[in-house]
Amino acid sequence: MRHTIAATLVPALLLAAAPVLAAPDRIAAAATLRDKALDTGAYALLEDLTTTVGQRLAATPAEQRGRDWAVKAMKAAGLVNIKVEPFPMPVWERGIETAEVVGAFPQKLTIAALGYSGATPAAGITAPVAYFADYAALEAAAPGSLAGKIAFIDHRMMRAQDGSSYGTNGVVRRAGPALAASKGAVATLIRSIGTDNHRNPHTGSTVWQDRKALTAAAALSVPDAEQLARLVARGPVTLKLVITPTFNPDGQSANVSGEIPGSGARSEIIVIGGHLDSWDLATGTIDDGAGMAITLSAARAIKDAGLKPRRTIRVVFWGAEEAGIWGGRAYAEAHKAENIVLAAESDFGADRVWRVSSKVAETGLPLIAEINRTLAPLGVAPTRDNGAGGGADVAPLGAMGAGILELEQDGTRYFDLHHTPDDTFDKVDKAQLDQNVAAWAAAVWLAASDDRPLRTKAN
Amino acid sequence: MRHTIAATLVPALLLAAAPVLAAPDRIAAAATLRDKALDTGAYALLEDLTTTVGQRLAATPAEQRGRDWAVKAMKAAGLVNIKVEPFPMPVWERGIETAEVVGAFPQKLTIAALGYSGATPAAGITAPVAYFADYAALEAAAPGSLAGKIAFIDHRMMRAQDGSSYGTNGVVRRAGPALAASKGAVATLIRSIGTDNHRNPHTGSTVWQDRKALTAAAALSVPDAEQLARLVARGPVTLKLVITPTFNPDGQSANVSGEIPGSGARSEIIVIGGHLDSWDLATGTIDDGAGMAITLSAARAIKDAGLKPRRTIRVVFWGAEEAGIWGGRAYAEAHKAENIVLAAESDFGADRVWRVSSKVAETGLPLIAEINRTLAPLGVAPTRDNGAGGGADVAPLGAMGAGILELEQDGTRYFDLHHTPDDTFDKVDKAQLDQNVAAWAAAVWLAASDDRPLRTKAN
Repeated sequence: MRHTIAATLVPALLLAAAPVLAAPDRIAAAATLRDKALDTGAYALLEDLTTTVGQRLAATPAEQRGRDWAVKAMKAAGLVNIKVEPFPMPVWERGIETAEVVGAFPQKLTIAALGYSGATPAAGITAPVAYFADYAALEAAAPGSLAGKIAFIDHRMMRAQDGSSYGTNGVVRRAGPALAASKGAVATLIRSIGTDNHRNPHTGSTVWQDRKALTAAAALSVPDAEQLARLVARGPVTLKLVITPTFNPDGQSANVSGEIPGSGARSEIIVIGGHLDSWDLATGTIDDGAGMAITLSAARAIKDAGLKPRRTIRVVFWGAEEAGIWGGRAYAEAHKAENIVLAAESDFGADRVWRVSSKVAETGLPLIAEINRTLAPLGVAPTRDNGAGGGADVAPLGAMGAGILELEQDGTRYFDLHHTPDDTFDKVDKAQLDQNVAAWAAAVWLAASDDRPLRTKAN
Repeated sequence: MRHTIAATLVPALLLAAAPVLAAPDRIAAAATLRDKALDTGAYALLEDLTTTVGQRLAATPAEQRGRDWAVKAMKAAGLVNIKVEPFPMPVWERGIETAEVVGAFPQKLTIAALGYSGATPAAGITAPVAYFADYAALEAAAPGSLAGKIAFIDHRMMRAQDGSSYGTNGVVRRAGPALAASKGAVATLIRSIGTDNHRNPHTGSTVWQDRKALTAAAALSVPDAEQLARLVARGPVTLKLVITPTFNPDGQSANVSGEIPGSGARSEIIVIGGHLDSWDLATGTIDDGAGMAITLSAARAIKDAGLKPRRTIRVVFWGAEEAGIWGGRAYAEAHKAENIVLAAESDFGADRVWRVSSKVAETGLPLIAEINRTLAPLGVAPTRDNGAGGGADVAPLGAMGAGILELEQDGTRYFDLHHTPDDTFDKVDKAQLDQNVAAWAAAVWLAASDDRPLRTKAN
């Protein structure tokens, strides 16, 4: 298959004499990648990662096993200059977590602690529930009004293809527990920030400005949140919670990277990748094993086609994204002197790319237009705007002036699975995963074979 | 609404002078029930049961709370002669249950012990896995060949509207663990007998001919079974299992019943109902809170319409069906002297009735034809045959000669939820639940207002 790809390319490509190919040649090569890269082994790669490594919680031995896997996978894909770049960070790990209704209607509820949740005493806490139908209702609660109570934020999230409802609802998880604690709450439960109706809570990090204010914080699965709301509608509810995570300030994670060195302008770097860590409740398949498999497979497809990119293509697997973008921030800081011309992360599941967005210098807009035209046969819509933020791990690079490319994925079912025990390999649709690889291979090749400036700020 | 129903009935019905109504009157009344019973409160009843009682594991205090609820609900529906009839049985309760892969690919797997599973030592057992792609492969294993091993039966179940795949696959759960133990296995894991792909294992009873042969037995969720199969494909796998249920031979459950006494032939009894117990992992909504809500609401619809059935309509909520049809067997034995002319159980979820089947005397076939004609506007297909077995709890009555009626429900999604943590109220579609009530009210009224013999054997 790969021989066929190379054989169909125009001889000029194989000679790779010119640092910049003529546009028709570049675009023909991109079209070939798009059409031939539709089975590049991403599915097998993702199967292997999620089967042999499984969950990869930040700064744990499981994440280390993920890095070992990543180094091997990058070598197997033919990347060079493979690096593992450590950085310090705290380690938060889940302990026991149980919730039960006490009193007239005794029953257990299914919860998962939020990342950076504080702990209850080992014997748990028992307290009445203060109900808030949404985040605004909690904001409106008077200071001190939650003293001795367990806040329950029953905020609902709707499905949105572009993921926008996570933008508007994520605050409940990130800021809700600290806000409730500031008003006296002894613990906080949230309705999962998710769109499914299975007994699988959605975890995710919550944020404390002051770790001395820490209280226990957990998500109820959506059916459990609805059950608790029905109980609250009948009268006062008392809960017993046991939530015993641990926190160690002295941990370590790392970023892993490898390259296809540029043949014409090696110092112009295009960074693509996904994040290596995952939450601990499942095998981190859609979040973000898929992003790793897609971007590494796209790089491999370019290499295996015999193409010689002018610019360097660097695949980065960031550590500890879920725990607070530790890897993305450390990476941007460590590489701020480099000329990273474009950065792109795949971190929105394994379903199809449906739209392109970007944030590049005006000189780069013709390249984005080429990408749009090339991806159209995959069903991808034109650039929405030139104000994209990029994935979480590339946003710090973008803030420093790197151009940003986003191959936006269809997120219709993403928040059914995101951060839950259900983020497992069986959820991947191979045809959709391969469409991603095709789109990434073509887009990355177009950018890497080009010479038009992309950065929004000089470095 | 109910006044309206009564007012539309022919005056002869309200006078209830004749013990047997003329056929056109009976059928007109049935059609009115069918069309007006479409919102009879079944949804609210099911919400209340599953919210205030939740799970109702056989022979536990939770099942007792379910009986208290049932007595109140029957009184509220206007039933009389309400009885609670206890019977002895053992109590099996879940303990700790964890499974983890040890060795090169360490990870946790999600399991749920099967009912009547034996226990591992508290510290667990660690043993290699013996893989069987299906039940036949386990049957073919040589005697003694599983000594010291954990059997893993990876038998797959397909979706079937009529539930027939549970008939062909249920044996894996019921008989697999004892069969594996007889060949030396120290424990058994099965792929859940279910059709979903969520991280929710399907529990259910397993059967031991000899309790001295007990070993631990649990179901993996479908994604976990697929994960374990992928690991097995890579080479030998060792698991550590901790499964610590308890067994007490001296427990008690009970059946609950109430009646609309017959106005013309009180001793001719039509038994309808569902089972009161549920598995412990969820709130027992589709299995079988729905059956209780449907049949009680159907009886109430008949009563509230001011109709006077000739025969007695008795609603029975059987205890301990899941644990081995203890209630159904005790009920048949205790009531064998009664003239139970027809028995019907609703125990296949909350989705629409789509087909009728029966097992009645030839003299009863014209009644079944009337039921078919009356339910046709609800989308119900005619009787499939006259050889129905009835639900689990009425099968013992059928074996003693009671006529059997089955209002078969669409089971397409039933085994996504059956015996899992996902059997919760949010899964109920109110329109479908109400269609059941309409079908049951019309069918039960037709049978109760009739005088044609239905029993297949005299009692």
